[in-house]
Amino acid sequence: MYVYLNNAATTKTDGRVLFKMSKYFSELYENPMTSNYSPLAKNVEDEMEKSREYIAKLINCKSSEIYFTSGGTESDNWAIKGICLKNWKNKGEIISTPIEHMAIIGTLKTVKKWGFDIKFLPVDKYGIVDPDDLRKLISKKTLLVSVMHANNEIGTIEPIEEIGKICKENGILFHTDAVQTACHIDIDVQKMNIDLLSISAHKFYGPKGVGALYIRDGVQIEPFIDGGHQEKGLRSGTHNSPSIIGMGEAVNIALKEMEEERKNVLYLRKMIEERVKEIDGVYINGHPEKRLPNNLSITIEKVKAESLLTYLALNGIIVSAGAACSAKEKEPSHVLKAIGLPDDLAYNTIRMSLGKFNYQKEIEYFNEVFYEGVKRLREFAPK
Amino acid sequence: MYVYLNNAATTKTDGRVLFKMSKYFSELYENPMTSNYSPLAKNVEDEMEKSREYIAKLINCKSSEIYFTSGGTESDNWAIKGICLKNWKNKGEIISTPIEHMAIIGTLKTVKKWGFDIKFLPVDKYGIVDPDDLRKLISKKTLLVSVMHANNEIGTIEPIEEIGKICKENGILFHTDAVQTACHIDIDVQKMNIDLLSISAHKFYGPKGVGALYIRDGVQIEPFIDGGHQEKGLRSGTHNSPSIIGMGEAVNIALKEMEEERKNVLYLRKMIEERVKEIDGVYINGHPEKRLPNNLSITIEKVKAESLLTYLALNGIIVSAGAACSAKEKEPSHVLKAIGLPDDLAYNTIRMSLGKFNYQKEIEYFNEVFYEGVKRLREFAPK
Repeated sequence: MYVYLNNAATTKTDGRVLFKMSKYFSELYENPMTSNYSPLAKNVEDEMEKSREYIAKLINCKSSEIYFTSGGTESDNWAIKGICLKNWKNKGEIISTPIEHMAIIGTLKTVKKWGFDIKFLPVDKYGIVDPDDLRKLISKKTLLVSVMHANNEIGTIEPIEEIGKICKENGILFHTDAVQTACHIDIDVQKMNIDLLSISAHKFYGPKGVGALYIRDGVQIEPFIDGGHQEKGLRSGTHNSPSIIGMGEAVNIALKEMEEERKNVLYLRKMIEERVKEIDGVYINGHPEKRLPNNLSITIEKVKAESLLTYLALNGIIVSAGAACSAKEKEPSHVLKAIGLPDDLAYNTIRMSLGKFNYQKEIEYFNEVFYEGVKRLREFAPK
Repeated sequence: MYVYLNNAATTKTDGRVLFKMSKYFSELYENPMTSNYSPLAKNVEDEMEKSREYIAKLINCKSSEIYFTSGGTESDNWAIKGICLKNWKNKGEIISTPIEHMAIIGTLKTVKKWGFDIKFLPVDKYGIVDPDDLRKLISKKTLLVSVMHANNEIGTIEPIEEIGKICKENGILFHTDAVQTACHIDIDVQKMNIDLLSISAHKFYGPKGVGALYIRDGVQIEPFIDGGHQEKGLRSGTHNSPSIIGMGEAVNIALKEMEEERKNVLYLRKMIEERVKEIDGVYINGHPEKRLPNNLSITIEKVKAESLLTYLALNGIIVSAGAACSAKEKEPSHVLKAIGLPDDLAYNTIRMSLGKFNYQKEIEYFNEVFYEGVKRLREFAPK
């Protein structure tokens, strides 16, 4: 049995998405920018516009407010750097959190070098931001607030709607990294007062290498990638049309099926949760209720994540230690640090992230192997 | 008959490339960064490394000097902005040409705002740079020279080897945009003294949305997209593994077949060239010999490109007016302007770009339709 429980890192492309994409490689392959003079390119352009409409429907905005990118990381970079480039002369400050994805943390480091000030909101032991802290931290210099919708490692969902409200009241732009939530839990950029929002297709059964940035009409932002004036001059580069169309199809499927998926993954997660709670010295990270339905982050006393990951992999089970991006790094996770987990326990932490292709038999198998693994690895652990 | 003569804008994905990619969407879909703990992810990582090796072989560098990007435009942005970010404090100047792709021209405008000086080399009526002009223009402040390998609109090939030699002698970094030449004509970054080189897969029968930047070992450059530390920390974002592997396969095919393709497209281009020369008031743009084998840019007196493109499209023939990127813009091409073509003639200019899937019967058909089209459109032209 091969059990993939690393859906927060990336997901399997849905067969229907792949089928939809397939004809845009070698049949309808023309550059959509040439649609004025090519009927086939016109078809590609029309399909890309459908993708835009599906995404707009998903987050409740206009399709003209959706801009295609190469993925969530680019969207995050663009949102922040684009606002900074627009405010180049007067500079200003950005407020964020210490548990953001590295795409945000890394970008903030760069714009700090550009002369922008960065302030971080504290988070509690569940990783949750207190909106009152934001109220206190905001100043006349604040340009932008960037708080993720839900955390990729511990699954905690942030009080986005309240944060959006505060930003709106203060006339400050609000960006959210929704890479872990788009097509998984509900997003409404109107209700949540979001001005900029990043998504990535491969986190919801779409292809890798494509994403989008929602930019509310009227938001003043500079392009991040310059060139041939695609995407109304804001994001240049030949459109990755097969992937853009694939992303649209993935959203279209999610619009119909995400409710059902949410129930299923929650049921399966609870199965794991109940079982691991029976084991001594196993703790669940993140908020007990305000969390992604598919995420389970646990810390296991006296078991190194590295050993457990290897043990599980040898039994055909794929989970992760924190973010995939840092899978090859030796530093403890900045997220676990921020919620107050000591380094030695951070190294004992693994994340299971479920997806729509997981089923009950897999979870039964996981529970069995996991129990056995923890027991055996603890026997080897130094007393 | 449907005849696609716009291969400089984008190409059909080779069936063998698509076949190679296909299993990396829904079977071997795992995040290659998790290869430590997943045998399937390890397979993906290994295949990506093969892609790197194929590209390295193509341009004669080490595979560790190849960095994957989302395409040629990102590579161009990164090369220039990355060098500027590295030289943030002392600033400096960049030397380029007025006939670069918009990905370079647009990027230069941005870094100018950042405080870097930009100087342009003149080009002659064929669009060729004189290396002696570069010698004169270089100063102590020169950080980087960026000259394209061959022009996308008029096909002119620049004296890259001499330019590289001058840069090397002066200790200046040399970037070339090889988007139109990679897998079409020979590139040797050692012989040509190139430090940074951009390529894009969809220009050589690979997928859209993927490219690479070659960065010579030792070149000091900042990341352009920050995040999860992929690509040795220099280009973050989940790897677009199916497309990266597809690009590798496209290069692998080109390594074996590009010589043959070159001969074929040259033969077909000559067929068009001979025929159009027989028509009064038709002129060929770009250098007669130092040009891409597959490119033919022509200016036709008394025929607007827009009308001719429509006429050809109605007959199933796809060509372009300048770059695809500017297909929807009304400004005359900056390249045609730079080689001294007056605006009215720039609007009378079309580009045919051939590819490996074109064959003789198509060109015979093109020649017939083209001849008839020019004749009929001239009958309508104002006297």
